[in-house]
Amino acid sequence: MSKLAQAQAIPPPNPLEELTAHLSDDMKSVNALILERMNSEVPLIPQLAGYLIAAGGKRIRPLMTLASTRLFDQTTDRPYRLATAVEFIHTATLLHDDVVDESDQRRGQASANTLFGNQSSVLVGDFLFSKSFELMVEDGSIDVLDILSKTSAVIAEGEVLQLSIQNTLETTLDQYLQVISAKTAALFAAACEIGPVITGQPSEIRQAMRNYGHHVGMAFQIADDVLDYQSNTKELGKSIGDDFKEGKMTAPVIFAYEFADEKGKKFWIRTFEQKELTEKDLEHAQKLIKTTGSSQKTLDLAQNHIKLAQNALKNVGDSEMKSILHQLADYALTRKN
Amino acid sequence: MSKLAQAQAIPPPNPLEELTAHLSDDMKSVNALILERMNSEVPLIPQLAGYLIAAGGKRIRPLMTLASTRLFDQTTDRPYRLATAVEFIHTATLLHDDVVDESDQRRGQASANTLFGNQSSVLVGDFLFSKSFELMVEDGSIDVLDILSKTSAVIAEGEVLQLSIQNTLETTLDQYLQVISAKTAALFAAACEIGPVITGQPSEIRQAMRNYGHHVGMAFQIADDVLDYQSNTKELGKSIGDDFKEGKMTAPVIFAYEFADEKGKKFWIRTFEQKELTEKDLEHAQKLIKTTGSSQKTLDLAQNHIKLAQNALKNVGDSEMKSILHQLADYALTRKN
Repeated sequence: MSKLAQAQAIPPPNPLEELTAHLSDDMKSVNALILERMNSEVPLIPQLAGYLIAAGGKRIRPLMTLASTRLFDQTTDRPYRLATAVEFIHTATLLHDDVVDESDQRRGQASANTLFGNQSSVLVGDFLFSKSFELMVEDGSIDVLDILSKTSAVIAEGEVLQLSIQNTLETTLDQYLQVISAKTAALFAAACEIGPVITGQPSEIRQAMRNYGHHVGMAFQIADDVLDYQSNTKELGKSIGDDFKEGKMTAPVIFAYEFADEKGKKFWIRTFEQKELTEKDLEHAQKLIKTTGSSQKTLDLAQNHIKLAQNALKNVGDSEMKSILHQLADYALTRKN
Repeated sequence: MSKLAQAQAIPPPNPLEELTAHLSDDMKSVNALILERMNSEVPLIPQLAGYLIAAGGKRIRPLMTLASTRLFDQTTDRPYRLATAVEFIHTATLLHDDVVDESDQRRGQASANTLFGNQSSVLVGDFLFSKSFELMVEDGSIDVLDILSKTSAVIAEGEVLQLSIQNTLETTLDQYLQVISAKTAALFAAACEIGPVITGQPSEIRQAMRNYGHHVGMAFQIADDVLDYQSNTKELGKSIGDDFKEGKMTAPVIFAYEFADEKGKKFWIRTFEQKELTEKDLEHAQKLIKTTGSSQKTLDLAQNHIKLAQNALKNVGDSEMKSILHQLADYALTRKN
């Protein structure tokens, strides 16, 4: 193989891979702590937690906590416990998210609750949530405890709000933004604020990093909500159409319903409000989201948050880490899964 | 009506009523805080939380926190937030307890999840759990945060262990005691340790109150597990037989299986391990638990914990409050529901 062919065969690292590589030593410590702290005498706990955690995932939230610390301090080991706490809160949320309502059908995938049952998923989520607070208490910063306890309450509120507006086509863009700000961006913001807090930065730096995290979280979630209607992501391992099946009111649907002609409106009413789904409906929804310009409008929304995230970084001194975080914001839209 | 007849018509207050009356001013503050802090912009949250919390309940855990404070300090208002935090942890646990596994049938009663769905129950539980940590952070004691974060993890572990041994007749008495120590006694112990901690008592007093709470919690849970097989409690509003239907391995069943003859063993294997229940089975289980002496043996176990709880109080200076707490331990067995 020629050198050129080799270079083409190995794609350049994306900003998330770059961040992961940059923080690989730190992440080793965090991963070790994750495994240590999800352990329990009760075997089902590490089994179930391990199914979700050890399987991997991008660990983007703990990376944020590490990065926001390394911007200001190269040596402290304080972020390890707190990055683990952040990942545990995220994992607990995932476990509780997947609990199935009586009235609902199971998803296509083998989520933890499919394998272990609703009750186990809930209780192991509670265990991880408690462990996250244990880790914060060990660190001892009442400021961090304040940030993460408030964030946890906000996440739960966001999830309940999302549930309340499910299948409701009258949902406004503002309500959608409120939901994703709470259920996703809040933990990104908190993860990024931890670094400045434990390294004793002034409040404007805290606020800048909080803003960065918030807007990156918004951009990632909005992009996720577009990806859920893009059929070409199927081959990349992401299951698509879950939001459609669950009647989740995300930006692509809100815009598509707004821009729809009479026939289009009827389609959304049947599939979302009357919950009458046929096999071809997802494909048609995808088509409507594309042709009405809803897809593009949603991507523009994400792009705006990327800009705001990058603007927030202007308050932070230049460094290689800052440059990676700058690119990471773009990655919300350039990634494929 | 003669004075004697009147006195007979109004039964004397039981120790729990006496404690509640004694702490009624304090409880007003706690109840106000409970209502204030379970509120949210998302209407479903106070609706669901209110269904469970405002409905009442005995509030025995927050009373323990108040009592353990008033033993040492008559005026501080620090226990209010922490008693509320304790009640929220308890309520979150109840909400998560009631989430139904796919494979299970619903209970007879209208639990919160029957009315609001599994997902809402889980998420509102998470909200209350987060709020409990917010309250602790506001109080600012890292010792209390340490106690309650560890306790929350232990509760979740206990619940998972209980799930793991469900329908397993090989369950030992030790395993049962481990489960109830974690799922019930741990929060009683923590609630009673908070008072000495926030009033700055020496470690032996902390340990004494912790022991008191632990043993009272054990006695109440063991007595509860007996009451669940006593048909005469039906008229007092308590639904009986839930443990039997769910295949919960509690002391009455563990003893009854141990003492059973061959025919008895077959009955327990059919109902617990093969999960084949007929209408008359609960009645027969109740009879076996009585005739094998299992009921009495379980009550003896509870009585032992009552003694240990009362012994623990010997390390605490005499007061009216201490005398009420002494009687409250007895109440674990004398109460009817």
